[in-house]
Amino acid sequence: MIFVNGVAQSVIPADDRGVAYGDGVFRTLPVRDRQASHWSRHYAKLAHDCARLRIPAPEEATLAAEVAAIARSEPDCAIKIIITRGRAARGYMPPCVTEPTRILASFPFPAYPREHYERGVRLHLCQLRLASQPALAGVKHLNRLENVLARAEWGEADYAEGMLLDGEDNVICGTMSNLFVVESGGLATPDLTRCGVAGVTRDRIIAAAARHGVACRVERIALERVLRAEQVFVANSLIGVWPVQYLAGRTWQPGEIIHRIGQWLDEAEARS
Amino acid sequence: MIFVNGVAQSVIPADDRGVAYGDGVFRTLPVRDRQASHWSRHYAKLAHDCARLRIPAPEEATLAAEVAAIARSEPDCAIKIIITRGRAARGYMPPCVTEPTRILASFPFPAYPREHYERGVRLHLCQLRLASQPALAGVKHLNRLENVLARAEWGEADYAEGMLLDGEDNVICGTMSNLFVVESGGLATPDLTRCGVAGVTRDRIIAAAARHGVACRVERIALERVLRAEQVFVANSLIGVWPVQYLAGRTWQPGEIIHRIGQWLDEAEARS
Repeated sequence: MIFVNGVAQSVIPADDRGVAYGDGVFRTLPVRDRQASHWSRHYAKLAHDCARLRIPAPEEATLAAEVAAIARSEPDCAIKIIITRGRAARGYMPPCVTEPTRILASFPFPAYPREHYERGVRLHLCQLRLASQPALAGVKHLNRLENVLARAEWGEADYAEGMLLDGEDNVICGTMSNLFVVESGGLATPDLTRCGVAGVTRDRIIAAAARHGVACRVERIALERVLRAEQVFVANSLIGVWPVQYLAGRTWQPGEIIHRIGQWLDEAEARS
Repeated sequence: MIFVNGVAQSVIPADDRGVAYGDGVFRTLPVRDRQASHWSRHYAKLAHDCARLRIPAPEEATLAAEVAAIARSEPDCAIKIIITRGRAARGYMPPCVTEPTRILASFPFPAYPREHYERGVRLHLCQLRLASQPALAGVKHLNRLENVLARAEWGEADYAEGMLLDGEDNVICGTMSNLFVVESGGLATPDLTRCGVAGVTRDRIIAAAARHGVACRVERIALERVLRAEQVFVANSLIGVWPVQYLAGRTWQPGEIIHRIGQWLDEAEARS
């Protein structure tokens, strides 16, 4: 099911700036039992990312109604929302008057193996290094060739996710997830002011940890520090939380803390 | 006039990886008197860029026939060619079997002011710095948010082009053009192995200079070196060669050498 600008259709104009320049942003969110999970957070991120690129964000009510329409016919699915700067004459200059294109597409909720949650996942250490671009860092924009090239480095079966470093051996994020380390009972997650995408689940984990009196530091984290951590996990809106079992020669047994964090998120979800 | 996969239509699938990830490449080339200028060079670059992203390039004959069809009905125009990795299931991993999408769109040849060629152009020095990403450098790919943000820094009337630096104060290229400096009779143009786009006209200028016994160094060029240069010019397939009249407080009078280089390109064009 695909809606483009509120109309059930599966095509967009070939001269949309989304395809010409990757000039837009996106989000992916789960629908469970006809409810879009954490809608307010997803909308806030979408609006924030649009503002970073100076694209007028769609009204929340408009998007929420379209999400609800999909959720009525597909009670359990995932929805991808893309907002582009719309059509324009050729040339990089953003048009004076922007009519953004919004694409909402549903797809079946991915069936991740149970053992990813119980035993943890193996991470490929990507050779591609993320470029440092503060003007775009943190934003879930449509310029995702780095992720595509990184994801092409390994086959489906070997690893569940790939870990991306910057040019200075700092860990930044997975190709589709954010990373956390557990150290002496506290949490830390990479600073994303130079590269990487700041996901909604990353924010929710930081907030949930604070509610439970667990500090989460947001700072530069070198690969060697990750490899010394007591526990490591990755997270995003669809997978939830996966313990990391293997990265770059180091192995971990999933600890109690990671399952507890998963529970914190479920609690918070039930309450919100 | 827009062709998508050989069919006259103006839409593409909303789930194309071109819009989802900017997963593709493009070129823009002039058509003069029903002939696509320097077609072989443009096709070679397109195929090279596709190979860099591991996208199967369309056959030259296929693309050439579509370009010729446009040129028959629009004898003087410009054509933008986009090749994306096509549709695929959600997720960054490139599909096992790729069916690329090709978009050919014509637009009127831009009417650049005569004085841009005779008196030269003013360049805005962009605040945005290009990120260093060797895996994508040189490729004319669809991840162009840096160019969009840079182009949004100034209004139409003030400057004809913007100059982009990397994070170390090296000049890389314009938002839509390549840069050359003239020093003691020789030429130099920035190394593009860490960022920037390597255009066809850049190659043609290097080749034309060599034919006329003028060396062109390809190397890192600091902004301060550009500001000390005898002459500076920018070039691309549509504009040809524009002398630079102003950049960052420095002014130049267009010199004979720049007009001569423009003539070299015309000669070469006549011969090819």
